Amino acid sequence: MSRGEKLLPALRWMRRYDSAAFGSDAIAATIVTIMLIPQSLAYALLAGLPAEVGLYASILPLAVYSLFGSSSTLSVGPVAIAALMTAAAVGEVTASGDVSATSAAITLAALSGAMLMLFGFLRLGFLANFLSHTVVSAFITASAIIIALSQFRHLLGIQAGGDTLGELLRSLWEHLPQTNYLTLLLGSSVLALLYFVRLKGVKVLTGFGVSRRRAALATKVTPVIAVILTIVLVKLFSLEAQGVAVVGAIPKGLPPLQMPDFSVDLVNALWLPALLISIIGYVESVSVGRTLGAKRQERIDADQELIGLGAANLASAFSSGLPVTGGFSRSVVNFDAGAVSQAASLMTAAMIALVSLFLTPLLYSLPTATLAATIIVAVMALVDFSVIRKTWKISKGDSFAILVTMLLTLSFGVEAGVSAGILVSISLHLYRTSKPHIAEVGLIPGSEHFRNVRRYEVERDPQILTLRLDESLFFANASFLEEYVQVATFKNGEIAHVILMCTAMNEIDYTALETLEAINLQLKQQGITLNLSEIKGPVMDMLVKSDFLTHLSGQVYLSQFDAFNDVKAKLGLA
Amino acid sequence: MSRGEKLLPALRWMRRYDSAAFGSDAIAATIVTIMLIPQSLAYALLAGLPAEVGLYASILPLAVYSLFGSSSTLSVGPVAIAALMTAAAVGEVTASGDVSATSAAITLAALSGAMLMLFGFLRLGFLANFLSHTVVSAFITASAIIIALSQFRHLLGIQAGGDTLGELLRSLWEHLPQTNYLTLLLGSSVLALLYFVRLKGVKVLTGFGVSRRRAALATKVTPVIAVILTIVLVKLFSLEAQGVAVVGAIPKGLPPLQMPDFSVDLVNALWLPALLISIIGYVESVSVGRTLGAKRQERIDADQELIGLGAANLASAFSSGLPVTGGFSRSVVNFDAGAVSQAASLMTAAMIALVSLFLTPLLYSLPTATLAATIIVAVMALVDFSVIRKTWKISKGDSFAILVTMLLTLSFGVEAGVSAGILVSISLHLYRTSKPHIAEVGLIPGSEHFRNVRRYEVERDPQILTLRLDESLFFANASFLEEYVQVATFKNGEIAHVILMCTAMNEIDYTALETLEAINLQLKQQGITLNLSEIKGPVMDMLVKSDFLTHLSGQVYLSQFDAFNDVKAKLGLA
Repeated sequence: MSRGEKLLPALRWMRRYDSAAFGSDAIAATIVTIMLIPQSLAYALLAGLPAEVGLYASILPLAVYSLFGSSSTLSVGPVAIAALMTAAAVGEVTASGDVSATSAAITLAALSGAMLMLFGFLRLGFLANFLSHTVVSAFITASAIIIALSQFRHLLGIQAGGDTLGELLRSLWEHLPQTNYLTLLLGSSVLALLYFVRLKGVKVLTGFGVSRRRAALATKVTPVIAVILTIVLVKLFSLEAQGVAVVGAIPKGLPPLQMPDFSVDLVNALWLPALLISIIGYVESVSVGRTLGAKRQERIDADQELIGLGAANLASAFSSGLPVTGGFSRSVVNFDAGAVSQAASLMTAAMIALVSLFLTPLLYSLPTATLAATIIVAVMALVDFSVIRKTWKISKGDSFAILVTMLLTLSFGVEAGVSAGILVSISLHLYRTSKPHIAEVGLIPGSEHFRNVRRYEVERDPQILTLRLDESLFFANASFLEEYVQVATFKNGEIAHVILMCTAMNEIDYTALETLEAINLQLKQQGITLNLSEIKGPVMDMLVKSDFLTHLSGQVYLSQFDAFNDVKAKLGLA
Repeated sequence: MSRGEKLLPALRWMRRYDSAAFGSDAIAATIVTIMLIPQSLAYALLAGLPAEVGLYASILPLAVYSLFGSSSTLSVGPVAIAALMTAAAVGEVTASGDVSATSAAITLAALSGAMLMLFGFLRLGFLANFLSHTVVSAFITASAIIIALSQFRHLLGIQAGGDTLGELLRSLWEHLPQTNYLTLLLGSSVLALLYFVRLKGVKVLTGFGVSRRRAALATKVTPVIAVILTIVLVKLFSLEAQGVAVVGAIPKGLPPLQMPDFSVDLVNALWLPALLISIIGYVESVSVGRTLGAKRQERIDADQELIGLGAANLASAFSSGLPVTGGFSRSVVNFDAGAVSQAASLMTAAMIALVSLFLTPLLYSLPTATLAATIIVAVMALVDFSVIRKTWKISKGDSFAILVTMLLTLSFGVEAGVSAGILVSISLHLYRTSKPHIAEVGLIPGSEHFRNVRRYEVERDPQILTLRLDESLFFANASFLEEYVQVATFKNGEIAHVILMCTAMNEIDYTALETLEAINLQLKQQGITLNLSEIKGPVMDMLVKSDFLTHLSGQVYLSQFDAFNDVKAKLGLA
């Protein structure tokens, strides 16, 4: 990869672009645009923002990601989970009435963008690994349920609200008597149509001889058909006058460029939600990018993705949009529709700009119930409880983390849920890595091999404690070894020699070295020697550089077999 | 250990207590009490509190720890670092003038106690392992420098102040012209005396035929001699009238029992400092307890220590004291003076109570310069820059963490320093554990052993990629393996089979299993089979429970040798 390509990954596809690639990308861009129009509007409304903000977030961010992102098919824009998190964050700061929802969302996008860029420059992409996928999927399932429930008010034409499962259910129940039946009829019809197409659409179309791939793509266009149909219905029967809520006037024109509001109070209130949105958005984005990349043997660079997504969010903020991230469904559609490069996203951005410039008046009579039905069908596809059953069989710790995350998200909202998920993930990781695997080993008779005494019939001696350390030793797990040796030698007073078999010790840090010295010293006070065997080259280099070896009460042996025999000889046993 | 002993560790020594033990403990208690009187007063002044608060914190907390702590010789009370952190936290909340320093310190102790108890009940003692010892020592060195510098104002008799190295130096420089020369003479004489005794005391006394151990203990009494001498000097020459600052009136009596102030604002302002004090205090305490415990084959229970320290801090708060923790010097003196059980601490508490009841009027004329000299000599013993040089040879990452922690502590104060230390520690840990050690291995000709291709002359085949995973696989490191396999197979198009040698994989979690499935799927799309060898029992159980094996494109082999031969046979090579 050249230096230029490292800074601007887009150069990679630009240099070998041709008309065939353009053709494929143009088709993909058209299909994605059709899919994005209702999605962008819907997610803006979900975030509690004017519909046009969603369109704005689908123009510049796409273009900027296409230049700086490392995935060739990831499609960036407003997504359901980030929209829900935006709604929660914006709701808190606008309660006082000093700030408009739009300017809070813009600041949120700016902070999120700046953080992602910073993490990218610091090459912290690896940190995303510490958010366990199972925890993320639990968070997404719970959020999807909250999102779906929050949309029922639009289907019913009522004023219900709330951030948690309890609040939403209570509010829906209280406002149920105000249901507008025309809205309910319209909304549930759209919902039924969308569900029918999702479940049976491909089957019906392939029955007519359409290829499976084309049929799958065609079903993605259904929301736009629903949009057009319901707009026509509203106009024909003057449904707005009969209480069917519509999107209303959307200003025509390109996104207004503007400086986000960076006042201290606003930044103070939004930096934590911005961090959480960044983390969740980034983890999802990289996971979608990797899934698609694997199919094309394309490597996703975790640090470059931080920069790409960060730049996209900054672009969104400066062009009056909300926080964006790589969306799963839109990226899959982009990929399946044949996009070969980020030129597809550039063209999508251009087409959405055209919509924003000329077509917004047509959207005036679009019922919000139609958008709500679109959201419900989209997010219900994210609900996945099977992970609880699957993890239960493999690891109870994972199941516990999932339940905690789901319950907290449903009971206390997205911010509590995702914070808990991150804490549970990291605690689980710290807990696991604080206990290195240590096995007591003995000699397999007639061989030179040493194996776990619990699994094999092996030769051992009550005066010799032979431990195999199955991990590198460093500050977080070193004291566990110290305690292990303490407990073992306090329990068995006969032990005269300890042999530590270091086959799997790839590294050692300063604290671990100090701990080894402490173990050596303590054993010496108990009249026990400490011996090491099978030390790897890099670790031996470090031991030599420190003065550990000069204090060592026992010896260092090349092989465990030598160590065992020599120690036995010292005891007069061999 | 009985159930009762688990709940109340003191039962262990109480059940076998006899008059010999009582004699040893009484001697130790007397020496520790003599040492504690100036220390308690000094650390209270360091924390910006009235001197008696230090005495109060040396009564009930000691008694309570002696019941619930798991160490038989740890001595709990006010210590230098915690006092400095208390000063920083208290300084922030008292700036507004609404709260007194004492009531802020009491709330701090209460919050810290409650947190430690909670962590103890949740059995989170293992989390202390994640604060690297090198980082803690860096923090202590920097804090000791700040503490020593902060005491120069008492030696000079001026009003300087500040929380950081820069502030302290500037303030000392500005106030230097106001130096009281009598105070300076008195203070520097005490400083010289204490340093002389520390450096040469043992040598001089052993020259007089005193045993080494007794000589070492005798030197610990010097601060009290300095206290008595300087009180006499102040009284004889009426030095107070000539501007030598003295401790002044200390109320006589037992610690007043009272409910800490838990008002919302105060708790909001103090919970984070309380958490930081808890963490640092706990880590230090456990490390002192373990060092002493090792000499007596006594195990320190990390979770029980949380409960013991937590209870001690709650006791301190309810008896008008400041945050306490296990002190290094006092515990070593206690141990060296022959304490055999926590009865020594109970007796120390009783003696300090007697001092507080009857002797405080005698302390009226004690110069603060004497206490400052005591503090300076005590904390300078904590300064250790050699760790930078030592870690530099072993691990640059450790040196970096040390420098960051030291610089931040010196430049921005203790809270910034310890927060940075914790973050750097955990990031270092996360970084290390996100990259499992993976080695490409080949067959050692004429054997059945496989070894790293970089270190040995081995047999390999360009169509077979054989990787040995040297660690357990779980969510935080699984994606590294995925990327490793991607990069290796993208680079070398010849590869037809991948064999993953799982010798060191002790565990696998759900995310890692999903990643293995993703690797399998991707390799399948590239026309490559994935094979596993030498899977351990527990991991195999999990693979069987999931349906991973039904999707596996290759096979599972008992030994790497079988796998290599079978795959070669498939390629028509064997």
